[in-house]
Amino acid sequence: MSGGVDPEAGNFRNALGAFATGVTIVTTRDGDGRDVGLTASSFNSVSLSPPMVLWSLAKDAASLPAFLTATHFAVHILAADQEDLSLRFAVRGAEKFAGLALERGLAEVPLLPQCTARFQCRTTFRYEGGDHMIFVGTVEQFEHTERPPLVFHGGGYALAVRKAVAEPAGQAEPDSSFSQDFLIYLLARAHFQLFLLLRRDLERHGLSEDQWFVLSILAVSDNRAAAELDGLLWPTGKRATYELLASLTAAGFAQLHGGYDPQARVTLTDKGRDAVIELVAAAKAAEEHAERSLGSAETHVLKRALRAIIRETDPGAPTLLTPLHPE
Amino acid sequence: MSGGVDPEAGNFRNALGAFATGVTIVTTRDGDGRDVGLTASSFNSVSLSPPMVLWSLAKDAASLPAFLTATHFAVHILAADQEDLSLRFAVRGAEKFAGLALERGLAEVPLLPQCTARFQCRTTFRYEGGDHMIFVGTVEQFEHTERPPLVFHGGGYALAVRKAVAEPAGQAEPDSSFSQDFLIYLLARAHFQLFLLLRRDLERHGLSEDQWFVLSILAVSDNRAAAELDGLLWPTGKRATYELLASLTAAGFAQLHGGYDPQARVTLTDKGRDAVIELVAAAKAAEEHAERSLGSAETHVLKRALRAIIRETDPGAPTLLTPLHPE
Repeated sequence: MSGGVDPEAGNFRNALGAFATGVTIVTTRDGDGRDVGLTASSFNSVSLSPPMVLWSLAKDAASLPAFLTATHFAVHILAADQEDLSLRFAVRGAEKFAGLALERGLAEVPLLPQCTARFQCRTTFRYEGGDHMIFVGTVEQFEHTERPPLVFHGGGYALAVRKAVAEPAGQAEPDSSFSQDFLIYLLARAHFQLFLLLRRDLERHGLSEDQWFVLSILAVSDNRAAAELDGLLWPTGKRATYELLASLTAAGFAQLHGGYDPQARVTLTDKGRDAVIELVAAAKAAEEHAERSLGSAETHVLKRALRAIIRETDPGAPTLLTPLHPE
Repeated sequence: MSGGVDPEAGNFRNALGAFATGVTIVTTRDGDGRDVGLTASSFNSVSLSPPMVLWSLAKDAASLPAFLTATHFAVHILAADQEDLSLRFAVRGAEKFAGLALERGLAEVPLLPQCTARFQCRTTFRYEGGDHMIFVGTVEQFEHTERPPLVFHGGGYALAVRKAVAEPAGQAEPDSSFSQDFLIYLLARAHFQLFLLLRRDLERHGLSEDQWFVLSILAVSDNRAAAELDGLLWPTGKRATYELLASLTAAGFAQLHGGYDPQARVTLTDKGRDAVIELVAAAKAAEEHAERSLGSAETHVLKRALRAIIRETDPGAPTLLTPLHPE
């Protein structure tokens, strides 16, 4: 899409949205001692020495008079989990500061907690910028954490995911073009290798992966019908056959209340619960091992993407009864 | 980490890095008709009406004189795949424009191709900003695409991944706390459901998933030893047993040259190659179906994260020979 500037400014706004930014809340205190603040993505760095930053404020903003007279302001770079705070400070006239654990900074400017970074600034220049004023501040104090930041892009919130997670330059494997490309291969391999990390723990309890899945489902919500268990299990490629349930009963992990009846209830025994608790810890440890080269944003995106794939490819309910009997 | 401003500016630079930004290249033409440009992340929007943007340039930059005298400049917002361009324009004095398919914009300013967005600006204000000059331009022309943007954060390149991919508010499944939390469950289920999409195509050829994996590996690089195939296959939980290889031979998809010898070579037949080509297309279609609620950045991060997990959990080489015989 190409063209001159649209007087409606809608297209221009969309084009500006192509530039990803962090999200900040800028705060100050007005002449009457009232706290003032708003969400802004127009922040950026200006100078290292002296340390300076800038942001822009609409000339028709209710908070303009406060910022024009304030000697200081604070810029808070929001963390990925502070979307609510971003939305709260984006609305005019709301009770923005109510209930927040505020601190006080230079010139009593309100400081918000739990941000990725905070800059306390002395207002140094105010510049003309069309329908906005540009505020340049000299940074007098700042704080910085490693919290992943909230990102704004294309009109919505986003996460910043590192582009280059160190990948070996040339895959040693000659089948790399197969393994790199095929999602089904990547899923199969990641699944099996993660399972290998758990296998020793499962073997110690004499459990197969199938049996462990059944116990895990029961640990979350006990006393299910056999058919219901099968329905939950089968999208993983496993089946809650009578044989599997009977084997869990025989080993003392679960109890099958009834015989070859899809409605027979299955409950966890104390032994089963103890085993699950231990295996959940082992599974979490295996996951942490698997994810150790991933950042928190990558892990979040990975799990969300897998859930999205599961939704998109949901095969619906299984054919009940028949598959409960082994073929 | 908290404190006053470090005179060394290193910590301050790190704190500024907490604010994610897009990456731009700003270009102009100097008085001698030479193209000038540099990478900048200090861009941001200023005004909608009139449309204005700003960016900052170090006062000791070699390109400062050109930008001080130029009537126009262009800002290019880089796409996720333009990291090389970003690096090229970040280095002083390099032959930055060599070999690029330049266009010419207002005042003959050089325009770079394939960016996420471009803004052609008339220099309107130049402001003092410590060790930088702030340039404010009025946007006279702009273009905008849907290419995902390159992001800069914490000193490195990143991707912007949408924060909220619509997830059903309350999972209907009562086992949601199990399925939401456990990577091994998510992987197992995503893998199996993706396989279900392919199963009909595989059945049409009379192939199992295990057989298909063997054929796919051969399609990438043919004529492998049986033991080698097994080594490539086993991290997916499948084994290239003699029985499996013999079944492929019997069905005319592959040929096993030799008997019960781990070094026996396996080659693809024409029939096998035809089947693989068709199944690769089906697998790609199944993947596209699975990924249809994911953006390109999410898909990229998903596959990269799976590869990272595969690396982290690599079980090493299989025990050869013995497992080739079925147990």
